[in-house]
Amino acid sequence: MNTMNFHKYRPTVTPDLPNRQWPNRRLTKAPIWVSVDLRDGNQALAKPMTVEQKLKLWDKLVSIGFKTIEIGFPSASQLEFDFTRRLIEENRIPDDVTVQVLVQAREHLIERTYEALAGVKQAVIHVYNTTSRVQRDKVFCKTKDEIKQIAVDGATWVQEYAKRYPETHWIFQYSPESFSQTETDFAVEVCQAVMDVWQPTPQNKCILNLPSTVESTSPNRFADQIEYFITHMQNRESAIISVHTHNDRGCAVAAAELAILAGADRVEGTLLGNGERTGNMDVVTLAMNLYSEGINPELNFSNPDDWIEVVEEVTQIETHIRHPWVGQAVYTAYSGSHQDAIRKCLAVQNDDKPWDVAYLPIDPKDIQRDYEAIIRVNSQSGKAGAAFVLEQEYGLNLPKWVQQDFAPVAQNCAESTDGVVSHKVLFDAFVEHYRLNDSHSQLNHYKLDKQDGKEHLSLEVNGETWQGVGNGTLSALCNAWQNKTQNEIDVLDYAEHAMHQGKEAKAIAYIHVQVGNQKRVGIAMMEDSLSAMMQALISAV
Amino acid sequence: MNTMNFHKYRPTVTPDLPNRQWPNRRLTKAPIWVSVDLRDGNQALAKPMTVEQKLKLWDKLVSIGFKTIEIGFPSASQLEFDFTRRLIEENRIPDDVTVQVLVQAREHLIERTYEALAGVKQAVIHVYNTTSRVQRDKVFCKTKDEIKQIAVDGATWVQEYAKRYPETHWIFQYSPESFSQTETDFAVEVCQAVMDVWQPTPQNKCILNLPSTVESTSPNRFADQIEYFITHMQNRESAIISVHTHNDRGCAVAAAELAILAGADRVEGTLLGNGERTGNMDVVTLAMNLYSEGINPELNFSNPDDWIEVVEEVTQIETHIRHPWVGQAVYTAYSGSHQDAIRKCLAVQNDDKPWDVAYLPIDPKDIQRDYEAIIRVNSQSGKAGAAFVLEQEYGLNLPKWVQQDFAPVAQNCAESTDGVVSHKVLFDAFVEHYRLNDSHSQLNHYKLDKQDGKEHLSLEVNGETWQGVGNGTLSALCNAWQNKTQNEIDVLDYAEHAMHQGKEAKAIAYIHVQVGNQKRVGIAMMEDSLSAMMQALISAV
Repeated sequence: MNTMNFHKYRPTVTPDLPNRQWPNRRLTKAPIWVSVDLRDGNQALAKPMTVEQKLKLWDKLVSIGFKTIEIGFPSASQLEFDFTRRLIEENRIPDDVTVQVLVQAREHLIERTYEALAGVKQAVIHVYNTTSRVQRDKVFCKTKDEIKQIAVDGATWVQEYAKRYPETHWIFQYSPESFSQTETDFAVEVCQAVMDVWQPTPQNKCILNLPSTVESTSPNRFADQIEYFITHMQNRESAIISVHTHNDRGCAVAAAELAILAGADRVEGTLLGNGERTGNMDVVTLAMNLYSEGINPELNFSNPDDWIEVVEEVTQIETHIRHPWVGQAVYTAYSGSHQDAIRKCLAVQNDDKPWDVAYLPIDPKDIQRDYEAIIRVNSQSGKAGAAFVLEQEYGLNLPKWVQQDFAPVAQNCAESTDGVVSHKVLFDAFVEHYRLNDSHSQLNHYKLDKQDGKEHLSLEVNGETWQGVGNGTLSALCNAWQNKTQNEIDVLDYAEHAMHQGKEAKAIAYIHVQVGNQKRVGIAMMEDSLSAMMQALISAV
Repeated sequence: MNTMNFHKYRPTVTPDLPNRQWPNRRLTKAPIWVSVDLRDGNQALAKPMTVEQKLKLWDKLVSIGFKTIEIGFPSASQLEFDFTRRLIEENRIPDDVTVQVLVQAREHLIERTYEALAGVKQAVIHVYNTTSRVQRDKVFCKTKDEIKQIAVDGATWVQEYAKRYPETHWIFQYSPESFSQTETDFAVEVCQAVMDVWQPTPQNKCILNLPSTVESTSPNRFADQIEYFITHMQNRESAIISVHTHNDRGCAVAAAELAILAGADRVEGTLLGNGERTGNMDVVTLAMNLYSEGINPELNFSNPDDWIEVVEEVTQIETHIRHPWVGQAVYTAYSGSHQDAIRKCLAVQNDDKPWDVAYLPIDPKDIQRDYEAIIRVNSQSGKAGAAFVLEQEYGLNLPKWVQQDFAPVAQNCAESTDGVVSHKVLFDAFVEHYRLNDSHSQLNHYKLDKQDGKEHLSLEVNGETWQGVGNGTLSALCNAWQNKTQNEIDVLDYAEHAMHQGKEAKAIAYIHVQVGNQKRVGIAMMEDSLSAMMQALISAV
C-alpha cells in the first residue's frame, strides 16, 4: 500500500490548560442562538440567493424562533444592501428579533453598513479582521501590533459612525477571524484592545465571537481554547462569548457543545449545516441534541418538512438521508432485533412517563415523523414522504411540481386511514387520481408527419379527430387542442423516464401545462414514450 | 412560538470521573481500524448488497488498507454465509487481513458461524448481547445476573466450538451492545465475566468492543465512559479496547477521537459513515483528521473518486457535497477574501516546508482534488467531476451510463490541457463527441401511424427511407433499423429531459443500446422530445 505523505502536516497549537473545568460540566440550557444562514450560508452557494429567496428564508428563520439573525454583508453587495433596506422599510423585523450584519474593519465599508441599517430599531454590527499566524505572515504581511491596530481602528469606526444614528440600539460584536488558528494569548490581547475602545458594561455588553473559521483540532482542544480565553480575559461579565464553528473535521456540533461547557454563551450556525466548504455548525442537530436530553431548545423544529423545503429550495442542496434527527432514514430500523426491541418498548411506553425506547432517542412524532420499520407514509409525512415511497417502491421519479400536485391526494389517503398508509394504497391513489389505467381508451390512433421542420399531427381522441401543426410533437398537439376548443394552452415543463429496462418497458411521462389561469398536471404510463407524452397532455387538459 | 415538549426526556447517566486524564492527551497515532461496511453498513440499506456487490466492496476495502473487515452475520442469512464461503474458497483473503463476523450469544447461531468460517486462516468471532437498562427491563425482561449469564454462555460456546477448528487462529471479541446506555459498572462486570471464560493473555488478547449503539450524550461523556471502563477493569493488558460509535447526535467522529484519548486501541466504522439510522462513525473523516495533523492514517484514501464510486453503487446513497474531506464542495471557496488568501499562501508554499495555507487544512492534490475557485475539472476529476460541471453549468442531467461513456473523452480533454479544463472546453467536447450540432441533417422527415396498438413508422435518414413496426416508437425505429441492416438491436435504457422551461425549449434524449456485442450511447438535443429520442437512437447506431 502506498502511504499518503502525512509528514507535511503539523498539528495546530492550542494552549495548555492544567486546571480545565469544562469536562466537569453538563449541558443544562440552550445557548443564545444566531442564524448565519443568510450570510455565511449564502456566501457558500454556487448560486447565491435572490432577494425574494432571502425574504422567504428570513420568514422561516423568524418562525423557527431565532432572535438574532445575521442577514448579510450589506457593504459588499448591492443585493444585500437592498435586502437590508427591504426588511427595514417593509417592517419585517419583529420587535424581539435583532438583525446582525457583517463588515470588515475598513472605514468606508463600516460607513456604508450604517447607511444600510438606517432606521432599524436595534442591530448587531459585527466587525472582524483576521488574526491567525498564517494570515498575518502570508496574506497581510503585518506584525501582531499592526493586526491589533486594524481591530482597534475597526472598533473605533464602528463606535464613531454609530453616533450618527442615535435612534437605533446598536450592539457591537467583534470576531478575531481564524481564532482557532490564532495563538489564544494574542486573541485575548486583540479582544481586550477592542473592549478598551467600546467600554462595555454588564448592562451593555459587547459580543466577542470566536470562530473556528477552519476546524483544525479535535473538539476538546477547541473547548480548551475557549476556556483559556474566558479565564484569561478581563471584564468577563461585560462580554457575551460567542462561538462560530465549522465542520472541516466533521466535528462542528461537538466543538460547539464542548465550547458551551467551556463557558460560551452564544452559538452561531445554520440550518442543516450549510456554509463554506464542509459547512457551518448545524443548529438543528445541536438544538435537537439538547432537546433529547430534556433541555428546552428555545427553537421550534417540530415541522421539518416545512422548513427543509425552504432550505433546499434556496440552497439547491439536498438533505442527506442520514442527516441527524431529520434525514429520511433516521427513524427507519431494518434490523429485525431493532424492530422487535422498538415494538416491545413502544407497547409499554406511557405518555406521562419519560421517553424510554430502545434505538429511538426521541419520539419521532415530536417532529412529525413515524417510526418506519419499512418505508411508510402517514398524514404527517408531507409530499416528500409520498414521493419517497413512490420512488423507492415503484421507481417513479416525480418532478417537484407533480409532488406538489399529488400532496393533497396523499394527505387525504393518510387521513382516511388509521395512521399509516401502505405503499399499495398510495400507489393506487396515484393511479386513480391521474387515471393511469383508463388512458388506453383515449388515444387509439395518431399520424405524425414531419416535413420542412414542421410536425403535422392528426389523432383520434375519444372518437373525435384533432389536427394541429407545430415545431414539435407537443406544440402540434397543443395546437390541435386549441383548434378544437379555442382555449390557450402553454407547456410549463415536462419529464419522462423508463419504468423498467429494455425496449418493451413502460414509459411514464409527466406534463405541466397552463390552461387559461389554471395550472394542470397530466401523467401517462404507456408502452412507448411518445404515446405517453401525448396521453399525458391529453390527461392534463 | 409553540415550544416542543422537552420535558419528556432525561439525560443518559454517565459515570463521574474526578481524576479524568483523557483531556490532557493528544492524538498521536491511528487506532487499529475495522471496517463494518459489509455488516452494519449493509444491514441499514433498503436494498442490501448482493454477493457480487459485497465482493466488489471487499476488494476496495482491502485495497484501502483495512486489516480487519467485519464481513457480515453469516448465521443470520444464507447470502452472508455464501459470501463468507466464497471469500475463503476463492482465496480472496490476503494473509495480513482478518475477517470478522458478528453473531448473537446463541448456541445454534454460533455453531453455524463456525461452519461458515471452516478453513479460514484467522478470524475474529464477534459475539454480543444487549446490556442496557431499557433492554433488560422492557425487551428481555431479565435481571442483570441473567443478562450477564447470556454473555457468559455465549463466550463459552464461542470457545467450545472453536476447538472443532484447530487449524484456524481464532480471535474472540465481545460487545456489551448498547454500552453507551448501560451503567458503566455493569458493563465492566459483564466484560470481566466474559474474560474469565476466555482467559486472554497479553500475548493472546481478546477484544472488548464498546458501542454507542445509539449516541445519547455529548462526546466528552462517551470518553468518560471509556476511561472509566478502562480504569476499572482488571487485566487491561490482555484486552484490546475497541469502540463502535453511531452518529445520532452528529458527533460519532468526535466520540471516537475522544475515546482514543481515553484509551481505546481500535475503532470500528464505515466509509462515509454509512450505517443504521444516522450511520456509523465515518472512517474517512477520522483518518483524514489524523492525516491533517501529521499522523500516519494507516489507510490510503488518496483516490476518493475511485472508492466513492463503489460505495455509492452498493449503498445507492449519494455523498453529500459538504462531506468532510471528500465532498464536491469542500475545496471550493466562493468568498473573494478566502480566494485571495489561498492564492497568496499557495504562491509562497514550498514543497519541502510543512503545509501552511489559509482555509485549506490539507493540500487538495493529496486526494486528487484541486482548489476550485469556481467549479472546474482536471485530469484527476473522474467522471463525477465532468458530470458535476455539465449539470451545474449546462443543466445536463447525465444518466450514470452516459457518465461512464463520456469519462474517457473528459479525461482526454483534461490530459491535453494544462491541468484544468474549463466548462466550455468540456461542453464543446461533449457536443462534438455526441455530434449534437450536426444532428439536424440526419432526420428531416418521418411519418408515424398508430393503429390497433401498433406504431407504423416511416422516416428518412440521410436521404434513405427506413420503415418499421413496433409496440412503440422506439421499437418501431429499432425494427426499421433491423430491416435496413439485418443487425439485432436492443434498447437497454433511455432518459430524456427538458433543457429550459416552456414548449419551445429544447429536449435532450439519451439512449443506451446494445448492437450485437457492443453497447453504445446516443444523445440528441432537438426542439421536440420525439425527434430527440429518435435522433439519439440514430446517433447511437
